[in-house]
Amino acid sequence: MAHGYDSGWLNLPFVGIATFGKAPYVADWDRIEADVAILGAPYDMGTQFRAGARFGPRAIREASTLFSFGHAGAYDPEDDVTYLDGVRMADLGDADIVHTDTDRSHANIETGVRAILAAGALPVVLGGDHSVNIPCIRAFADHGPIHIVQIDAHLDFVDERHGVRHGHGNPMRRAAEQAHVTGLSQLGIRNVSSTAKEGYDAARAMGSDILSVRQVRKLGVEAMLARIPEGVDYYLTIDIDGFDPSIAPGTGTPSHGGFLYYEVLELLAGLAKRGRVVGIDLVEVSPDHDRSGITAILAAQLLLNVIGRVMHAR
Amino acid sequence: MAHGYDSGWLNLPFVGIATFGKAPYVADWDRIEADVAILGAPYDMGTQFRAGARFGPRAIREASTLFSFGHAGAYDPEDDVTYLDGVRMADLGDADIVHTDTDRSHANIETGVRAILAAGALPVVLGGDHSVNIPCIRAFADHGPIHIVQIDAHLDFVDERHGVRHGHGNPMRRAAEQAHVTGLSQLGIRNVSSTAKEGYDAARAMGSDILSVRQVRKLGVEAMLARIPEGVDYYLTIDIDGFDPSIAPGTGTPSHGGFLYYEVLELLAGLAKRGRVVGIDLVEVSPDHDRSGITAILAAQLLLNVIGRVMHAR
Amino acid sequence: MAHGYDSGWLNLPFVGIATFGKAPYVADWDRIEADVAILGAPYDMGTQFRAGARFGPRAIREASTLFSFGHAGAYDPEDDVTYLDGVRMADLGDADIVHTDTDRSHANIETGVRAILAAGALPVVLGGDHSVNIPCIRAFADHGPIHIVQIDAHLDFVDERHGVRHGHGNPMRRAAEQAHVTGLSQLGIRNVSSTAKEGYDAARAMGSDILSVRQVRKLGVEAMLARIPEGVDYYLTIDIDGFDPSIAPGTGTPSHGGFLYYEVLELLAGLAKRGRVVGIDLVEVSPDHDRSGITAILAAQLLLNVIGRVMHAR
Amino acid sequence: MAHGYDSGWLNLPFVGIATFGKAPYVADWDRIEADVAILGAPYDMGTQFRAGARFGPRAIREASTLFSFGHAGAYDPEDDVTYLDGVRMADLGDADIVHTDTDRSHANIETGVRAILAAGALPVVLGGDHSVNIPCIRAFADHGPIHIVQIDAHLDFVDERHGVRHGHGNPMRRAAEQAHVTGLSQLGIRNVSSTAKEGYDAARAMGSDILSVRQVRKLGVEAMLARIPEGVDYYLTIDIDGFDPSIAPGTGTPSHGGFLYYEVLELLAGLAKRGRVVGIDLVEVSPDHDRSGITAILAAQLLLNVIGRVMHAR
Amino acid sequence: MAHGYDSGWLNLPFVGIATFGKAPYVADWDRIEADVAILGAPYDMGTQFRAGARFGPRAIREASTLFSFGHAGAYDPEDDVTYLDGVRMADLGDADIVHTDTDRSHANIETGVRAILAAGALPVVLGGDHSVNIPCIRAFADHGPIHIVQIDAHLDFVDERHGVRHGHGNPMRRAAEQAHVTGLSQLGIRNVSSTAKEGYDAARAMGSDILSVRQVRKLGVEAMLARIPEGVDYYLTIDIDGFDPSIAPGTGTPSHGGFLYYEVLELLAGLAKRGRVVGIDLVEVSPDHDRSGITAILAAQLLLNVIGRVMHAR
Amino acid sequence: MAHGYDSGWLNLPFVGIATFGKAPYVADWDRIEADVAILGAPYDMGTQFRAGARFGPRAIREASTLFSFGHAGAYDPEDDVTYLDGVRMADLGDADIVHTDTDRSHANIETGVRAILAAGALPVVLGGDHSVNIPCIRAFADHGPIHIVQIDAHLDFVDERHGVRHGHGNPMRRAAEQAHVTGLSQLGIRNVSSTAKEGYDAARAMGSDILSVRQVRKLGVEAMLARIPEGVDYYLTIDIDGFDPSIAPGTGTPSHGGFLYYEVLELLAGLAKRGRVVGIDLVEVSPDHDRSGITAILAAQLLLNVIGRVMHAR
Repeated sequence: MAHGYDSGWLNLPFVGIATFGKAPYVADWDRIEADVAILGAPYDMGTQFRAGARFGPRAIREASTLFSFGHAGAYDPEDDVTYLDGVRMADLGDADIVHTDTDRSHANIETGVRAILAAGALPVVLGGDHSVNIPCIRAFADHGPIHIVQIDAHLDFVDERHGVRHGHGNPMRRAAEQAHVTGLSQLGIRNVSSTAKEGYDAARAMGSDILSVRQVRKLGVEAMLARIPEGVDYYLTIDIDGFDPSIAPGTGTPSHGGFLYYEVLELLAGLAKRGRVVGIDLVEVSPDHDRSGITAILAAQLLLNVIGRVMHAR
Repeated sequence: MAHGYDSGWLNLPFVGIATFGKAPYVADWDRIEADVAILGAPYDMGTQFRAGARFGPRAIREASTLFSFGHAGAYDPEDDVTYLDGVRMADLGDADIVHTDTDRSHANIETGVRAILAAGALPVVLGGDHSVNIPCIRAFADHGPIHIVQIDAHLDFVDERHGVRHGHGNPMRRAAEQAHVTGLSQLGIRNVSSTAKEGYDAARAMGSDILSVRQVRKLGVEAMLARIPEGVDYYLTIDIDGFDPSIAPGTGTPSHGGFLYYEVLELLAGLAKRGRVVGIDLVEVSPDHDRSGITAILAAQLLLNVIGRVMHAR
Repeated sequence: MAHGYDSGWLNLPFVGIATFGKAPYVADWDRIEADVAILGAPYDMGTQFRAGARFGPRAIREASTLFSFGHAGAYDPEDDVTYLDGVRMADLGDADIVHTDTDRSHANIETGVRAILAAGALPVVLGGDHSVNIPCIRAFADHGPIHIVQIDAHLDFVDERHGVRHGHGNPMRRAAEQAHVTGLSQLGIRNVSSTAKEGYDAARAMGSDILSVRQVRKLGVEAMLARIPEGVDYYLTIDIDGFDPSIAPGTGTPSHGGFLYYEVLELLAGLAKRGRVVGIDLVEVSPDHDRSGITAILAAQLLLNVIGRVMHAR
Repeated sequence: MAHGYDSGWLNLPFVGIATFGKAPYVADWDRIEADVAILGAPYDMGTQFRAGARFGPRAIREASTLFSFGHAGAYDPEDDVTYLDGVRMADLGDADIVHTDTDRSHANIETGVRAILAAGALPVVLGGDHSVNIPCIRAFADHGPIHIVQIDAHLDFVDERHGVRHGHGNPMRRAAEQAHVTGLSQLGIRNVSSTAKEGYDAARAMGSDILSVRQVRKLGVEAMLARIPEGVDYYLTIDIDGFDPSIAPGTGTPSHGGFLYYEVLELLAGLAKRGRVVGIDLVEVSPDHDRSGITAILAAQLLLNVIGRVMHAR
Repeated sequence: MAHGYDSGWLNLPFVGIATFGKAPYVADWDRIEADVAILGAPYDMGTQFRAGARFGPRAIREASTLFSFGHAGAYDPEDDVTYLDGVRMADLGDADIVHTDTDRSHANIETGVRAILAAGALPVVLGGDHSVNIPCIRAFADHGPIHIVQIDAHLDFVDERHGVRHGHGNPMRRAAEQAHVTGLSQLGIRNVSSTAKEGYDAARAMGSDILSVRQVRKLGVEAMLARIPEGVDYYLTIDIDGFDPSIAPGTGTPSHGGFLYYEVLELLAGLAKRGRVVGIDLVEVSPDHDRSGITAILAAQLLLNVIGRVMHAR
Repeated sequence: MAHGYDSGWLNLPFVGIATFGKAPYVADWDRIEADVAILGAPYDMGTQFRAGARFGPRAIREASTLFSFGHAGAYDPEDDVTYLDGVRMADLGDADIVHTDTDRSHANIETGVRAILAAGALPVVLGGDHSVNIPCIRAFADHGPIHIVQIDAHLDFVDERHGVRHGHGNPMRRAAEQAHVTGLSQLGIRNVSSTAKEGYDAARAMGSDILSVRQVRKLGVEAMLARIPEGVDYYLTIDIDGFDPSIAPGTGTPSHGGFLYYEVLELLAGLAKRGRVVGIDLVEVSPDHDRSGITAILAAQLLLNVIGRVMHAR
């Protein structure tokens, strides 16, 4: 494939409409012809501290243009592989969000993910707060079984409190309840959060493997991967606050002591080879709190690299 | 009354816990002994663009300490009046907000305002987005009739759209439907917003007097006041975006061409004399978008001056 | 025309890909079917103080979504007119910019404007620094004569200095040299800038009418309009620093004492009726210096209102 | 005088060491050969709310380069006068500040101003908080009598409180006590501040003429000037918070409802003709709170214009 | 103990008055009934670069609410311990600060710490700059002997310079002079700072054990702890700039190459078991420079975890 | 050498004109009498994403004052060495930049570096974008041979694209073409950038040793140094984006997974001993994107430490 800039347009990163990775925008969800489909889920009414993740999809899209120099694919000098060459990406825009109405908003997200799955593409959902994972997982009801790998500071395993079951503290509990979810690997969990002790007990009882950053770090990539079921379909949910606030300050509930970039990339690169990553969401990027923009850049850089590795492994 | 700093503590503005105007915090809402009671309503799930108003109450409280030099009352050299001298203010903290649940959150705000009214104090509610006005008005069901004076860039008169009836585009419509609301003066309305043409038609049909910033400015304070019913009880709802973005950038949906400080202060000072202000809310201050803090300072400065004039007029 | 939200999608302002006013993106410039065509010109190598205007187009696009509530047209309650109803807008994306190469970058901008003119649409160019006006004016060589109306703090009338003829201090001089430019009205000019006294002398000698903010203000809208030739084709170039830094802090060379929002809107609304506005550029929005985002909002709000009035007058 | 850029260096505003107006730096205060001498006074321990004014001098210097295009003098197209042409400016750097020690810091500022006066130059002091005015006034003990013209939101007339006599709430009281100070015009005073009612009474008793922004505005420039003694020596002290927060957000204690740019420029231009401005300080610019930099730009723009008019009037 | 949210209020982190950890505010220092008492010391006149730490206490309080989900205690999934369960915390507000007067301000801080010690509670002081450690240590005169453990980038061991003995470069020297201080472990010290070589020599001569970040890191937690006297009373002073600027940018004098979160937490967790931590101060958090808020979050997260471990060890 | 503060002025970091390390400003480049000469190169028209590096020199200068406590030299407690004692540094100000004209701007930078070399001083150039390295290397044409050691995230080895040969993606290719450049060690290279796969191939073919952060880290300092030719003259070019975004967010094209502070300091300290560092540039610091200022502080801290070690090794 020829480089884009060889065909008349230099198309520098700062030039042009900001779709994800400058992929074509596909407004008609009945005609998704792509290997990978990006869907924004700009819902943040489920947050318990700082809101703002509704602008996450736009910020990640804009940040992704930094890596869009117009090459054919993305050459990684360390792996000596050109990822994404020949991979067809499409940006579907955002699911429709209805303010004050969580149920409708979530339903619209589910509709989008179902459309992607129906088209046979890999859904990559940009949050939004972590509650948007709930409709994503629901959309896989007929595409399971899946094992969930979660990168997060927080367990997000609250069952119900004051009637709330679909906030950003609840998604992993909701997932664990689904028949098509066979298990969860919850990685990076640390410090106090909305899940109380009994939530941890419940998670373990329902089959979760919970590890902190220090525990994952101590294990190393290979041993960590070995704890995750092999050869199955993985759904990957990445809460940006799983990363350290030093590289991901732009999020609603930062927690110090998080993962660094290569720790997660190496783990996910390994995961892409260990089984089949069938769905991805990346949530809780809040650009209002991301004053230097490095959180959105982290999200974009990670997603482009992970998507590249996932598609390369297929 | 002696100055506070004459009694042992200098108590500079930057010192101490940030309650509104450094008023005492009253946690027990059954024992409100005050002339004025401040209630935070940190709900922002009703927003249609930038969220963040949930941190409005904390930001306004902190900004209010700038005007807390420990004098007895607040001397205004232009009026040669010492306002607030002898006025008992209490800060009730915030109404309980339940994420993802608008109805419960609004109900909790209503409970707070009802408690203030039961105690015979003037309720001053700090938003939160403008939807928090809905429970405020409901709480006055047995304390009417009231005439609503709204300072706002937007009409907020959407009836229903996609099922939404309690978002920040709906409060004035909800108010107009209440039996105890006798009329609305909607001031500062300008530019395109969530209310479409038919909303304007409906508002006028339901008795609203709608004026733009330029129209109010052209009328002048006296003529403007003359359009508002005299000698009645006013409920004052101030959306900070009624002000110009130059002095109120920290809000979710800024609209250029807004009011300046003295335009509103002079109008409200006149209103305080024309009838009886029985309730106030100030909404849509979003500190995440208020990088230099002047929006929160505007809110605090305006409220302290308006409360002073309202209480002085009694 | 029915409202967009009546057809299945609420499409709130914060939802969806950020094109200008959520207009459809048209990548093929040979197939522009629109009344108004938006073109980004993200070039800022002509700046003499702070750069950053290269991200102006993206910021204005995102800000424009704030005014995109999905109504059919934009109802103005003061004029009681629904503007933009039935107007077909298209967003062409950006002209290709080549770093270090002013000539090529400018040529690419000219190509874009020529394509718009060939399609019979109104070109609306989003800068970029003010030097992008140079290729815009060039593109009108066969679409003249035009009279230029400039809103700006700076005269931008430097002929040549150290070999520079196409920086952001030169565009009005370059324009005045063109055969198809019949005159210039330069409004808002104030304080010291890159144009020295001899530049002012030259401008006047070449037929410019130069007025400061205070002079325009003193004249009033009608008298000001009367100084501009009537019934001709106007090209409108708006440097955002013509506005006051209070509402347009996000620009490279702010100058205090500028225009306020309605001063310019009323002038341009009058202009739209006085003749035919055939081209518009709005330049020097620098989002890196626009911490609260109000400058981009000003640009978007002004453009949407001006485009509405221009098309309504036709 | 030839333009600087005609002699080999273009010297754009963003290029070079940031002294005030790119004036030469004079480290040896015994050899000041200049008409105007700039002295930084980076002391901010006298503040009662936000500190940060210690970086005011550096920020104003950097902002002043925006107006340094290398012309000979500063041409004002409205006045059709080239100001500053032939005026020799020198930047003396900063007075030495000793943390925790107000007396020593103030003494060092006084030493600097005395050196400027001994050299026969106009002292222009960049604060720092308003307490730096105290040593400035002291330095004029043998250069009086002087009449003080103050632009400020706050009266700064506290005598003593908790032992504090040299904080930023005290300078005008200290000045009024000096034998060489014949009177004060205190302009822009508004809202509650650290001075209580008895301070206003004392100020008036000691001969102050106190006017609010609205009062000055209502009078107009000529009538306002007429209240100031004619033909005497003026010392001008400008607290940046005398300006409106819309154009001066970057200050420690903003107060809404302040002056706009031309209101003050026109007043000071008139003052320069009415008598002899013999000293200037501009204080309370706090760059940490000046996110978009417009406050420092205001300070620089105002000072360069006022200095130009003061020297032109001589 | 039941969770707070089981008793009627959800009390999300963003809701309510911001005291430290949402602990009750105790205004009467003669009636402190608590195990742990928080005291703000908002003094920053001792700084030699950026000021702003006066707002540290308010920022840390607000950040601490992020960890206040209303659980009974703070469950740590790695330790499988619920810390803070049953621990009574009280927030005393701030010590009274007198601008321009270091001695009075320090004396007021000392008064507060003495009141806490008299009540038998653990004092936790929130700075303010590091000079506030001076009165803290003085307050322990009758509660010694104590060994000081300092986390810091800077040695802070200047004896006297230009008369300054109580600035933020002096506290460790002042501490070392006290009879009730038996020794100092100074950890994290790196790079050039206000202490010159002779200060290092003096510190070592007076019994300090000085280690850099790299030296502590190389030793490891256990070996590091072994260098600290066992079974004694520790006073812990944490300058936030001991941490790396990546996680603590919001401070006056950042120094690259600092500690990461778990390095310090593990060390202090070990210290809590090795002896008895009898006092804590955490200083130099400057929210004006903490644009994303992660520095205040670090301070709050660390303090809550350290307090939990200190009280658990008792 | 006596400490500066012993001679009458305390000269705290926040006091005084901001030259690099408070070194004397030398305007006459024909009279450079110094061991080390600092030259600003504020050119950023070569950038492909965010501009702003033109203000890098000013920001680094101001940040460098943080480390200017007035000691004689810079004592490093870890090395127990006082660096910089007796070293004469001079700040030459900036090379003249001509907007829109890359060739002239680059030529002016080359002139400056040649002047420094002619004076026998060590040139230290502050960028500006990485293209300013091109004239720096050219200036060494008669001072070679040199081996280039590059710290960078990006290979910067694009030959030509759309005619561009002197942008910030081209410098290493331009260097490799020079006769006096004997080789390149390119360290920190990672992720996708403007150099495509064929650029990597070309670099290796032309003699580059390319290593990623992880590869350098795995080797360790000694093994890494062993790959660099010994006993030769090194030219050191440091792109601040070689560092991790956690400590260097303020740059145009951040790339996660970068170097930490001590990794680079230790490597460069070793390099200073392994041969002779004869020139240094540090580029791509963009203060507009450096909200907390830590990037400029990193640049200043690194440069002061590296210069100290380079001069100490001589």
